[in-house]
Amino acid sequence: MPSADLVRALFAPRCVALVGASGDPEKNTSRPQRYLRKHGYRGRIVPVNPNREEVLGERAYPNLSSAPGPIDHAFVMVPTAAVADIIAECAAAGIPVATIYSNGFAEAGEEGRRRQQAVVDVARAGGVRLVGPNSMGLIDTRLPLALSVNAALETPELAPGSLGVVSQSGTVLGTLLSRGQARGLGFSKLVSIGNEADLGVGEIVDLLVDDPDTTAILLFLETIRNAGGLAAAARRALAAGKPVIAYKLGRSGVGRELAMSHSGALAGPDEAVNAYFRHHGVLRVDMLETMVELPLLVIGRGPAKGRRVAIVTTTGGGGAMVADRLGTFGIAPAPAPERLVERLRGMGVQLGHGPLIDLTMAGARTEVYRAALEELIASAECDAVVAVVGSSGQFRPEVAVEPILSTGRTERPVAAFLVPQADRSLRLLVEAGIAAFRTPESCADAVRTYLDWSPPGDEPTAEGRDTARAEAALAAARGPILDEWESRRVFEALGVPQAPARLVRDPSEASGLRLPVAAKIVSRDIAHKTEAGGVILDIGNAADLRAACERILTRVRGTHPAADIAGVLVQSMERGLAEALVGYRRDPEVGPVVVLGVGGTLAEIYRDVSVRMAPVSTAVARDMIEEVKGLAPIRGYRALPPGDCETLAEAVAALSDLARVTGRTVLEAEINPLVVKAEGEGVVAVDGFIRCEPAAAAPPTEHASRQRTSESV
Amino acid sequence: MPSADLVRALFAPRCVALVGASGDPEKNTSRPQRYLRKHGYRGRIVPVNPNREEVLGERAYPNLSSAPGPIDHAFVMVPTAAVADIIAECAAAGIPVATIYSNGFAEAGEEGRRRQQAVVDVARAGGVRLVGPNSMGLIDTRLPLALSVNAALETPELAPGSLGVVSQSGTVLGTLLSRGQARGLGFSKLVSIGNEADLGVGEIVDLLVDDPDTTAILLFLETIRNAGGLAAAARRALAAGKPVIAYKLGRSGVGRELAMSHSGALAGPDEAVNAYFRHHGVLRVDMLETMVELPLLVIGRGPAKGRRVAIVTTTGGGGAMVADRLGTFGIAPAPAPERLVERLRGMGVQLGHGPLIDLTMAGARTEVYRAALEELIASAECDAVVAVVGSSGQFRPEVAVEPILSTGRTERPVAAFLVPQADRSLRLLVEAGIAAFRTPESCADAVRTYLDWSPPGDEPTAEGRDTARAEAALAAARGPILDEWESRRVFEALGVPQAPARLVRDPSEASGLRLPVAAKIVSRDIAHKTEAGGVILDIGNAADLRAACERILTRVRGTHPAADIAGVLVQSMERGLAEALVGYRRDPEVGPVVVLGVGGTLAEIYRDVSVRMAPVSTAVARDMIEEVKGLAPIRGYRALPPGDCETLAEAVAALSDLARVTGRTVLEAEINPLVVKAEGEGVVAVDGFIRCEPAAAAPPTEHASRQRTSESV
Repeated sequence: MPSADLVRALFAPRCVALVGASGDPEKNTSRPQRYLRKHGYRGRIVPVNPNREEVLGERAYPNLSSAPGPIDHAFVMVPTAAVADIIAECAAAGIPVATIYSNGFAEAGEEGRRRQQAVVDVARAGGVRLVGPNSMGLIDTRLPLALSVNAALETPELAPGSLGVVSQSGTVLGTLLSRGQARGLGFSKLVSIGNEADLGVGEIVDLLVDDPDTTAILLFLETIRNAGGLAAAARRALAAGKPVIAYKLGRSGVGRELAMSHSGALAGPDEAVNAYFRHHGVLRVDMLETMVELPLLVIGRGPAKGRRVAIVTTTGGGGAMVADRLGTFGIAPAPAPERLVERLRGMGVQLGHGPLIDLTMAGARTEVYRAALEELIASAECDAVVAVVGSSGQFRPEVAVEPILSTGRTERPVAAFLVPQADRSLRLLVEAGIAAFRTPESCADAVRTYLDWSPPGDEPTAEGRDTARAEAALAAARGPILDEWESRRVFEALGVPQAPARLVRDPSEASGLRLPVAAKIVSRDIAHKTEAGGVILDIGNAADLRAACERILTRVRGTHPAADIAGVLVQSMERGLAEALVGYRRDPEVGPVVVLGVGGTLAEIYRDVSVRMAPVSTAVARDMIEEVKGLAPIRGYRALPPGDCETLAEAVAALSDLARVTGRTVLEAEINPLVVKAEGEGVVAVDGFIRCEPAAAAPPTEHASRQRTSESV
Repeated sequence: MPSADLVRALFAPRCVALVGASGDPEKNTSRPQRYLRKHGYRGRIVPVNPNREEVLGERAYPNLSSAPGPIDHAFVMVPTAAVADIIAECAAAGIPVATIYSNGFAEAGEEGRRRQQAVVDVARAGGVRLVGPNSMGLIDTRLPLALSVNAALETPELAPGSLGVVSQSGTVLGTLLSRGQARGLGFSKLVSIGNEADLGVGEIVDLLVDDPDTTAILLFLETIRNAGGLAAAARRALAAGKPVIAYKLGRSGVGRELAMSHSGALAGPDEAVNAYFRHHGVLRVDMLETMVELPLLVIGRGPAKGRRVAIVTTTGGGGAMVADRLGTFGIAPAPAPERLVERLRGMGVQLGHGPLIDLTMAGARTEVYRAALEELIASAECDAVVAVVGSSGQFRPEVAVEPILSTGRTERPVAAFLVPQADRSLRLLVEAGIAAFRTPESCADAVRTYLDWSPPGDEPTAEGRDTARAEAALAAARGPILDEWESRRVFEALGVPQAPARLVRDPSEASGLRLPVAAKIVSRDIAHKTEAGGVILDIGNAADLRAACERILTRVRGTHPAADIAGVLVQSMERGLAEALVGYRRDPEVGPVVVLGVGGTLAEIYRDVSVRMAPVSTAVARDMIEEVKGLAPIRGYRALPPGDCETLAEAVAALSDLARVTGRTVLEAEINPLVVKAEGEGVVAVDGFIRCEPAAAAPPTEHASRQRTSESV
């Protein structure tokens, strides 16, 4: 269906059928009809209810086939088991779109997933597009169309505005609507997208990009079901000057568990989600209220050039609340430009001590505040301005609120934080198009989000790297779990330097390796080599090596009698300045990511990793090295000698090429440790593994637990 | 002055003198008179202004001596330089209390500090107690007394209530007042304490403990100027059933810098502040709004028994916002008690999947919600209940808000989170004494704060440890900076095991030490031994040791020709499972603290430390070990062998005894690394230093930079 037709059927239907409509005002299923009428829907409404001839004063029909057409949009509120039949009726009646409120589908476990698939099959076969199931409906404030069960529609008035909303939680539709309206912020279209059985978040975003009434798009997400679709739509939105702002659950393990149980979808680690949003230019906020307060700061703007924020205030304490919080994000306030200091001096105002631009109570005068704002907005020495309004904000808007109001839209964004309760001032500011914040935390969250906004990442180029050899090495490996020897051949083929090693059956084959060496059992069936007695380190001579190999084989045959043993890997011991973990994973939500952290267990303990969508260029890998706190010692920390960060970056980029490999799909790969030597001396991989997508159903192995473990970093 | 008299003069003065009162309504100095009258002050007001015979309709006097007495309270709004004279006039006129609005004192640098001291000297000599300088005044809603310049007093009405406030920011007085009143929360007394030149936060808290109108005490702090006084008052408050809730700036380096510049006081690392609040039973909130929303959750309660919170909701998304955030604090929702599941089943309600108690939209009925709340409040399986109210909260309070209202005060605290904008419901809940939250973040902040609340720590007993030997070792050391040899004698005397070592001039004196050894220069003048060429490790025999000692002495004499060299410390090399950092510091804000972290630079890089007020018992030291993430490997992590945590705890407790040492005052001490061996094999200190308070002014040394460095952990 052409998208214009889809938009019309979704948001501007000439006729809506309410299937399962109730006349009992206590029932949720009575609401859509009431809300449609209450908010001025001007099209036809067709209640469908086999037991009633009339619902809330409108003629009801026993089924869709008996209802007078054409019907553009069916809102389905029937019991779970009846949904598929209703969709079939929609198809028969030529209804192009159905929004399914009924639940009990993918969000309710395996059986529900099957039921949902059956509904989708019927819809596809009949050419019906679906919103939901488990959707609370959708709202268009212009038509207007209030096709939803959300109780927020009890509101006397539906103020139009320019914010588009797509939410995986139906409740949150009302949350945003009510919280926005209380501030004077209106919405264009709001969609409760439900389980996304057919139409997904990305598709609605795509429609909103083309919607002339929408200037920014807010997403409330529990999971990401179609990363590619959403990414493409978000990039289109940004290119069209419409910022996409997301609040996503799943920052904690608890949250991820909830998202999975609530949405029936998978959730990967949150760092991968951050990498995804960043890569595609989506602004991710941390707090609910920031969703409503951030848009005016970013609408019509792109990412900032720098990260400098000037904080002007008449109250030291009020300004410090924002600054302290920004400080925890590593953002320090920019000092007052010299011009401003001069100008204030001319007005007899001496700035307060410290890093804020503190006009002090003595400077709490309209002309002083206005002068400070003018200078800051014009200054090339900051990228954003926080204008803190003290006690005057509540009853004396002329002091600081009016100077902010009169700035209007400016080149540098202004975030106004009102320290007291000052609802009227908040509304005045919002009506003037100025971002106004009720709490220091939300203000800081918004400023951080804005300053951290980066342009969408390029589709990474291959930098001349060739994956053919890695594909061959992957093809040569048996089974979905590669053993260490097979894995290192792939890593080597990608261009990651490996410690000198031989795979031997007979220790004498290991001659020629630099001593001391380590000996390690190689078997796809053994994930935890050390625990299996399969590792001996620091072997200094040939006799010891022979003994070590024998001991390893004896022990492993004892602990794992059925293991398929490829041999013993004899490998030169490596020393360096630091150890890194370099990982690759096809994240269940966002797709291929590359991970860099400190080697050993630290990356996991501190969640101190840098994650990016894979593949990455060497330049991006360099940025990743900067982000890992625990790699500070090799970046030139105090008097410590720097490590070979350039070669480390190349290794990260090389491993990330797993995302470009064709043939077998690599689900997960990890090099840990990758030993980082002194500047100019390179890096060398000491251990690693690769897990591929099974060709068919494969029996679970010990590696399964390993997978869970590394998902936690 | 007896405290009853002080309270009367502060909050219930029969007559207030407004010194420097202006009749110009544009001037802040006109406000107190206007606000006093507006809010119904029934005592006498005496404007003092040498240039006017009348101010705002009341007879003015040229000075305090000509004003008719008795005057109980002078509010001083004169230029900085005139303040001392006014206080002298107060003394002469027998005015017992003066609140000083004038600024330009300790908050304005060294000169201001001197000016402030002069004012204090005059006040002390004349028997005048001071609030401020740099105070915005104080408010008592009962008398009523609105003696403040804060513009929040433009409010038409000053609703009385039971929250007491002490704020180091004058603006925040109005912030809390206005935000509280908007919710239906009233205050008893609010004090802008300013620079605390005389009366401090602790003293006002002490008065509020005895105030029958006050049930909880809110503190807005930039710094802690009198840790002992506040601690004692906070403990009294808690014992009296009045929770003390603090919002304190300084969580970031930026915030600490601000606090210092704004208040003129010192700021230590935030972890020390947390340790202090925790030790004295103060609830520290993270967000401004939690200040206003938390009190009703904790008034009349003590710390929870456990950390289990049940989250009941009719909206999965709404509940998940709170749960996800709690998850980031390591708090997981408690599952539904079996009794509740049964009871709901009886009502035909099937809980949603996952860890929330999700009644789903189908269970969004008054009787279902009420049943769930009843069971949870009665259940021994949770310590707190979060009641999430979905879309119904805005227009249909009967669904979920009324069941919460009807619970009233319960044994287990209930935190209501309203997902939509629902001002009326918030107010209804607050008026019923139920804690109600506007954002998921503030709700989670409050629940975390409550669940983390622990009873005040005992004054630690010495556990039979004797500090006499350590005092002798300290006394024997020269200068404020102890060299490594002197430091280790103190550590040894405290009972911290030291690596075998000798201080030698001649390497042959080092015979008998277990090889290999390390050789290190010992000099009070060299803080960075390695950089000075003063350390050689892994020396395997006597010949190498001789050479190493010579090389060290030659190098150090080259790099530090003027250094006072005590000799070379020859020390057996130590190996263990992990390295710890154990530190002690007299924090500038909160006093003696003990710090435990991972050895080397990691504690600093990750800020991964556990801090407690010193001294600590071995039991508390055990808790500290649990809190350091990076010590996970020795606590029994995966298959790794556990370390000797018991001996580590004893070493932490032993070092913390530096707080009990009499004679010389130790400012800072650090053992890094303390090598932790396998269980039963002990710990051993390998390096460390001690810095004492200088007897007199001492020249700066290289150690000064070391101090700054370790303050960052």
